Amino acid sequence: MDSIKVSIIGSTGYVGAELVHGFLCHPNVKLVHLTSQSFAGQLFSDVYPVYRGICDLPLEDISPEEVAKDSDLVITALPHGVSSKTVPVLLENGARVIDHSGDFRYKILATYEKSYKLDHPHPELLKEAVYGLPEIYREQLKDARLVANPGCYPTCSLTALAPFLKAGLIDKDSIIIDAVSGVTGAGRKSDLAYAYCELDEAFKPYGAVGHRHTTEISEQCSFLSGGDGTDIKVTFTPHLAPFRRGMLATIYCRPAASFADVSSDKINNIYSEYYKDEHFVRVLKNKELPDVKAVNGSNYIDVNGVYDPETGIIKLFSAQDNLGKGAALQAIQAFNAMFSLPEDTGLNTIIRGV
Amino acid sequence: MDSIKVSIIGSTGYVGAELVHGFLCHPNVKLVHLTSQSFAGQLFSDVYPVYRGICDLPLEDISPEEVAKDSDLVITALPHGVSSKTVPVLLENGARVIDHSGDFRYKILATYEKSYKLDHPHPELLKEAVYGLPEIYREQLKDARLVANPGCYPTCSLTALAPFLKAGLIDKDSIIIDAVSGVTGAGRKSDLAYAYCELDEAFKPYGAVGHRHTTEISEQCSFLSGGDGTDIKVTFTPHLAPFRRGMLATIYCRPAASFADVSSDKINNIYSEYYKDEHFVRVLKNKELPDVKAVNGSNYIDVNGVYDPETGIIKLFSAQDNLGKGAALQAIQAFNAMFSLPEDTGLNTIIRGV
Amino acid sequence: MDSIKVSIIGSTGYVGAELVHGFLCHPNVKLVHLTSQSFAGQLFSDVYPVYRGICDLPLEDISPEEVAKDSDLVITALPHGVSSKTVPVLLENGARVIDHSGDFRYKILATYEKSYKLDHPHPELLKEAVYGLPEIYREQLKDARLVANPGCYPTCSLTALAPFLKAGLIDKDSIIIDAVSGVTGAGRKSDLAYAYCELDEAFKPYGAVGHRHTTEISEQCSFLSGGDGTDIKVTFTPHLAPFRRGMLATIYCRPAASFADVSSDKINNIYSEYYKDEHFVRVLKNKELPDVKAVNGSNYIDVNGVYDPETGIIKLFSAQDNLGKGAALQAIQAFNAMFSLPEDTGLNTIIRGV
Amino acid sequence: MDSIKVSIIGSTGYVGAELVHGFLCHPNVKLVHLTSQSFAGQLFSDVYPVYRGICDLPLEDISPEEVAKDSDLVITALPHGVSSKTVPVLLENGARVIDHSGDFRYKILATYEKSYKLDHPHPELLKEAVYGLPEIYREQLKDARLVANPGCYPTCSLTALAPFLKAGLIDKDSIIIDAVSGVTGAGRKSDLAYAYCELDEAFKPYGAVGHRHTTEISEQCSFLSGGDGTDIKVTFTPHLAPFRRGMLATIYCRPAASFADVSSDKINNIYSEYYKDEHFVRVLKNKELPDVKAVNGSNYIDVNGVYDPETGIIKLFSAQDNLGKGAALQAIQAFNAMFSLPEDTGLNTIIRGV
Repeated sequence: MDSIKVSIIGSTGYVGAELVHGFLCHPNVKLVHLTSQSFAGQLFSDVYPVYRGICDLPLEDISPEEVAKDSDLVITALPHGVSSKTVPVLLENGARVIDHSGDFRYKILATYEKSYKLDHPHPELLKEAVYGLPEIYREQLKDARLVANPGCYPTCSLTALAPFLKAGLIDKDSIIIDAVSGVTGAGRKSDLAYAYCELDEAFKPYGAVGHRHTTEISEQCSFLSGGDGTDIKVTFTPHLAPFRRGMLATIYCRPAASFADVSSDKINNIYSEYYKDEHFVRVLKNKELPDVKAVNGSNYIDVNGVYDPETGIIKLFSAQDNLGKGAALQAIQAFNAMFSLPEDTGLNTIIRGV
Repeated sequence: MDSIKVSIIGSTGYVGAELVHGFLCHPNVKLVHLTSQSFAGQLFSDVYPVYRGICDLPLEDISPEEVAKDSDLVITALPHGVSSKTVPVLLENGARVIDHSGDFRYKILATYEKSYKLDHPHPELLKEAVYGLPEIYREQLKDARLVANPGCYPTCSLTALAPFLKAGLIDKDSIIIDAVSGVTGAGRKSDLAYAYCELDEAFKPYGAVGHRHTTEISEQCSFLSGGDGTDIKVTFTPHLAPFRRGMLATIYCRPAASFADVSSDKINNIYSEYYKDEHFVRVLKNKELPDVKAVNGSNYIDVNGVYDPETGIIKLFSAQDNLGKGAALQAIQAFNAMFSLPEDTGLNTIIRGV
Repeated sequence: MDSIKVSIIGSTGYVGAELVHGFLCHPNVKLVHLTSQSFAGQLFSDVYPVYRGICDLPLEDISPEEVAKDSDLVITALPHGVSSKTVPVLLENGARVIDHSGDFRYKILATYEKSYKLDHPHPELLKEAVYGLPEIYREQLKDARLVANPGCYPTCSLTALAPFLKAGLIDKDSIIIDAVSGVTGAGRKSDLAYAYCELDEAFKPYGAVGHRHTTEISEQCSFLSGGDGTDIKVTFTPHLAPFRRGMLATIYCRPAASFADVSSDKINNIYSEYYKDEHFVRVLKNKELPDVKAVNGSNYIDVNGVYDPETGIIKLFSAQDNLGKGAALQAIQAFNAMFSLPEDTGLNTIIRGV
Repeated sequence: MDSIKVSIIGSTGYVGAELVHGFLCHPNVKLVHLTSQSFAGQLFSDVYPVYRGICDLPLEDISPEEVAKDSDLVITALPHGVSSKTVPVLLENGARVIDHSGDFRYKILATYEKSYKLDHPHPELLKEAVYGLPEIYREQLKDARLVANPGCYPTCSLTALAPFLKAGLIDKDSIIIDAVSGVTGAGRKSDLAYAYCELDEAFKPYGAVGHRHTTEISEQCSFLSGGDGTDIKVTFTPHLAPFRRGMLATIYCRPAASFADVSSDKINNIYSEYYKDEHFVRVLKNKELPDVKAVNGSNYIDVNGVYDPETGIIKLFSAQDNLGKGAALQAIQAFNAMFSLPEDTGLNTIIRGV
């Protein structure tokens, strides 16, 4: 089989670099173009010296047309508002696209425009775009021309919630998601707020009202429970923690009336059954709870849940690498689905104990 | 004024060492005995070399009777189940006591015994003991013979909740507390689970069902709202994060029907009014959210809250140093109240920006 | 006694903030002006929120003349090349000055100009300026109008070397200083190189040839050994390590012929004798070696040394807080000497075990 | 080709787990036995939960004879003094062996016995054992029955020094090695000294006189320069730094008389020429200095050097992952050489930028 030609637009951020890492590990891919506006003319290994001798590809500042013409698939790691203008050009020029921004993640135009405070220049593509969570939208990915890679918090939250929403086992109005991200989630930038001395020994909430991922999660929760995308509103609070990679969601909800004899064991069994064929979702056993350390550097996401009989609250937990399952490696999982490759191709990272 | 003679039983853990730190800074205190079973015969500065030349007191393994006879006040930093046997001896021998265990924090004996899975050998003292949160029980502290220093999570949670519970502004059945502690919260011990390489780049929940602090918080929430200690059951989930000191609580609840025109501004105003005379509670302004870094090494606790109109959920936030306001320094604040000293005596730590 | 009026020019960097911290703890000082070009118009506590309610002084952008007229002493935390122009104005307007730059640390003009690649606009002040290491230049500090606060690496290195250089016990041509600094040493700035994700789990040398502190150390080593400032050239290599505060020097040298019966015990005894009256230099015992953790947040510097009989090499070790004894707190120690106060006034920080 | 059967004795320490990681990535290897005394009866993934679903092999407590009979190669990760008794049993039972202890690293028996304060029960094997640094002893590895995997500090130091010692370009009596290790270097154990709160924000030297790796480095330096193993004595000081993985050596030495026109460029050229065919040694360019971050998780070692004309000192720098090139991955590189596989088989880890 010929190599699939892949290019990355915006390759020098942390997500871009993780994409480079992932595709370098992929046996069926040839990286064609790595673009960068800030570092054009340098090598990728000039920007990330760890790649010296491993990936010395040039960073180019070329047009989307040129990128598309040379590529079977283009991954865009661009800011929202920029992607919505660039992606259509790529599609027109014959490339399939996986986009990392929020621009194509919504089906409900009004929700996108309210959340991002932008008019969408190509609302017709919202319908076509497939939300790139393979565990949920695997079938649609096969023929997708445009895949919207999910947000990191949405991936973490939806993987934990899906089995219960699909089965109608939880009260849709009761969902509270308390989540924590490592520092790479903020991107690679010169910003005092993310300096070592400012973040070491720090921990804080942010975006406590109206963080954009709230509506993305809500819309997908609605679809999972058979709704039209507008009938669920989750409560969501992100926090920033002093580690580089990793994301944990702690989710609180109430069982629906239909959830008979709810117990921690039953929650664990529901997870085990729902995810029994999923390679990348690990359902923990023996009341063990997810830890971001156990998924560091991988596309795995660990889940488990408990029921607190004192208060009648269900707690669901999920842990992933925010750059892995939460961003770049999930994009590669979706890529495999798009090109009918075994979904774990290139992703069987052997993670480390320390 | 003569110095007040203070002794510490169990002085070599992290809480014990922070007590030593705090009392060394206190102008009215003379440290008399530091006891330790494991390190008796050594100097305090042998166990904590940073104190060489600063605190070279001997560590003694002497009886509670002896300690009590030489001391005006004894602080016990002992495990639960041990405190309940040691504290009565100290009281009988004439010392006042501040206890750091859970053994005297409850008024409802059954709740204690269920939570700690222990029979209490001196239930009569539960009635006498004052819960050592000065912002709430200041008046009772003045004459207290026995003070139960609150748990770290309860201090953080109750300080955030008190203004709303007292005024009946929140739905008592809706309280969900999601909290994060630094590693010192686990104590000073040789345990692989707390080794550097196991915790760096890690983040995880623990005690997801039935953590002991749950019932302590619930009982005090009930008292704050005028109940008998049994009518509120909060949902509580602690997490362990990779920093040494600090604790953050993110609390979710619904406004009571009586809370008219709830808004983020109104929440902030309620905090400002309620805590306007409190030196150690800082109400943040301009939608700024608490960060554990801003209270590191101090007895301050920072609070703020927001209202999410989309979901009707109130979010309250509080940050403290788990060894400071969450343990040792709050004990010194209570000590000041007990001895009718200005409450900030010895506690005006000038915290650092980095 | 009236308070001494102190102002700080350049108060919002890490050294500036540590000066604010230190002077707030000082019983004889009133802070008058805090200047900042970048943050003028804001409060100090806007820039460092940890100081809310503790230090809400305004940040001003006023002329050196104005600052000097209102102040008994001005501390300048300015870049080199700027200090050399600002300090003379302060002196002319009647203030005494402690300067944190390299501009007044040298006696040999040519060495300064070569090291800093600058012409000095006021070389006449080099002679007057006192090098602010109180353990060495205590007497001259009393009447000093201008004090050059030593560099962090020079303080760490010279404190370890002084007893041996003064007594002629080591070969002056053999001195190799291998040193490590925490990240605050790089200052407070928006720079990707100092971002959390770039420095966590990193460790590297920098400035391997010609780091400016090399000549500062060399000149002072020469003076300590009775030379004219030009006869010693030390080898020096700094490294950047992933902690916020702290500096360790590991120094290699050969004993002089006059050092009879050199041994680890003898080295320890020489330290103990030389520093027996020094409050802030702690000579470790029992072959214990300095650790930056043990001096964190203080003006202490810990020293010890060993002799390796296999190779005939003496190893000297010293650890300090780079912002403490290495910068701001040493400036306050020098300030105390300048104003005939007990040298530890305001500096008896009770450091913590964790 | 049939898989090579490999077993690991002592598989649950950090080196053992990195060996498991490495061999799981190796296309020609089948892991047969993982032994553990402490955890026998559990699965490897019980001890390292990150491996759930990836490596669920049982941990066995079986005899060396049994292990050897089932294996083509056995890796021993045992304490010194234990290896010297176990390895001969393995050899007698037909397995080839790579040993991680110090027991077979020396050719000079007296040096081993003095350094380790042990009598060697099988001194005849010292002659047979090959020192497992492939860049130096590649040829002997091919037929080796017993390979002594080098110490972490020796690998780092010797890789930096080899080109200069082989060519006689440095003064053999002038070598000073100042080195820093991450915390995994201390192994996986329940020890307060390695607890998170004790090591975060700490940095210190240790073993300042007589660290065992000193004599291992010295003996190999002698062999590299054509000596008999006893004519070089290096000065060596290790330090412990707050990161998990990584090791940096900063080496000071004087040029030999034969090193004409020494300069930084010349040093760089010597490195480039000497290592031009080595896959795992990266010679940095443009005066860039090694950083442990750039080799994290890999078998790479980065080197560079400079000459300081002011003092006539050469500084050499090398950075590796202490568990990678410094331990387990180098063992796999040696394994490849032993079995005539391309030396990078299974080791082309694509390292990450963050």
